[in-house]
Amino acid sequence: MTADELIAAVKFDERGLVPVVTQDASDDTVLMVAWANASAIRNAFETGRATYWSRSRKSLWVKGETSGHFQELEEVRYDCDVDTLLYRVRQEGPACHTGERTCFYRSAWRRGRE
Amino acid sequence: MTADELIAAVKFDERGLVPVVTQDASDDTVLMVAWANASAIRNAFETGRATYWSRSRKSLWVKGETSGHFQELEEVRYDCDVDTLLYRVRQEGPACHTGERTCFYRSAWRRGRE
Repeated sequence: MTADELIAAVKFDERGLVPVVTQDASDDTVLMVAWANASAIRNAFETGRATYWSRSRKSLWVKGETSGHFQELEEVRYDCDVDTLLYRVRQEGPACHTGERTCFYRSAWRRGRE
Repeated sequence: MTADELIAAVKFDERGLVPVVTQDASDDTVLMVAWANASAIRNAFETGRATYWSRSRKSLWVKGETSGHFQELEEVRYDCDVDTLLYRVRQEGPACHTGERTCFYRSAWRRGRE
């Protein structure tokens, strides 16, 4: 599938964005959730690097561009409703800006401990 | 952490919703992405069953209530910015309404096949 074919199929929200779940391809850890627009998808397909749209900076965000913690794409998947993407990546260094490997490093509830 | 503590910390969007990634606790497959509001979080904590907010039906959505394909919660995690949740679940039957195990059953791009 080309980037344009995926972009034509995706149901972007009213801001032109689609949520992206990023998963480590080496062990299936969920690393982060961010957003993509059409440009981010196009850049991801062309460069093989996980690319998002930064809502705070309002600009294309190639993960790792400033930190060096790039995410080399292994695969881009899409869900049944075509309103969410899944990036499967090889993560350089930690994914989280806190230095943790995954952004989901904290637990709110566990079975048997509630 | 209580449901009220998590709800107080979560940065809900302008609709009062937060995205939820749902992951199979048995093998870390990403099953689906949906949305939760405060009521959904409260119900999930109280019942131990993955609960969402259905944007189309505008109602609380206990996954499996109609299909029988319940998701027994193992853990609720939250990300660094507290604007995304991760439900780790034991999934009964398929997660996807198409009958596929995961909603992310289709690939748009793979390294080396672009």
